[in-house]
Amino acid sequence: MTAGFAPLATPPYIAVIFAAQLKQDAPGYAAMADHMVALAQAQTGYLGHDSARDADGFGITVSYWRDLDAVASWRRNAEHLMAQKLGHDRWYEHYTLRVAEVTRSYDSHDFDARIGKDGG
Amino acid sequence: MTAGFAPLATPPYIAVIFAAQLKQDAPGYAAMADHMVALAQAQTGYLGHDSARDADGFGITVSYWRDLDAVASWRRNAEHLMAQKLGHDRWYEHYTLRVAEVTRSYDSHDFDARIGKDGG
Repeated sequence: MTAGFAPLATPPYIAVIFAAQLKQDAPGYAAMADHMVALAQAQTGYLGHDSARDADGFGITVSYWRDLDAVASWRRNAEHLMAQKLGHDRWYEHYTLRVAEVTRSYDSHDFDARIGKDGG
Repeated sequence: MTAGFAPLATPPYIAVIFAAQLKQDAPGYAAMADHMVALAQAQTGYLGHDSARDADGFGITVSYWRDLDAVASWRRNAEHLMAQKLGHDRWYEHYTLRVAEVTRSYDSHDFDARIGKDGG
């Protein structure tokens, strides 16, 4: 396991897929993003997250949660609500958010056992 | 809608969440990645994808599909199988892949109607 990958929890669990284009000028964003990661990690039901942002400010963060109750609690967290509003009003040009139930997960170590098998 | 975002399809649909760390030297990767995008776009049931890669070569690609049959067909595509093998053997230090069913999705235009509502 390479550092930085969210651990593979046992399905089913929830993925929140957040894709966002930052504005060219987004003062305060980086510090708030770091704070939100620390806050999320302290939430009940948090399982990990993966995040990547390209040089043009387009980023994807996928956070993983035990169940929908954990997602709902995080969504209503007071500091997170404030961050969501700042993100909407100041930092993000546009974003999309999807809530999904993970049914299967594996990693590169599973390749030899998996490749060519059917089932999607 | 900002260019580059996958359109918001009507749930339910499938998200394939692929996170990968590229090796420092990954010759041929970029051309193959472009070709795979073109090939995926021609598949039945392809709904779009979002992709971001940071300066250290850690990237997330989320592709969206109408149903699991579409995912299975894409997974078994002959050229895609070859690309998967090259990715495993040559290009990726490590990767994780998750298959998930999207149950809700929205974007920044929905913010005012959504924020503070319950339901996760």
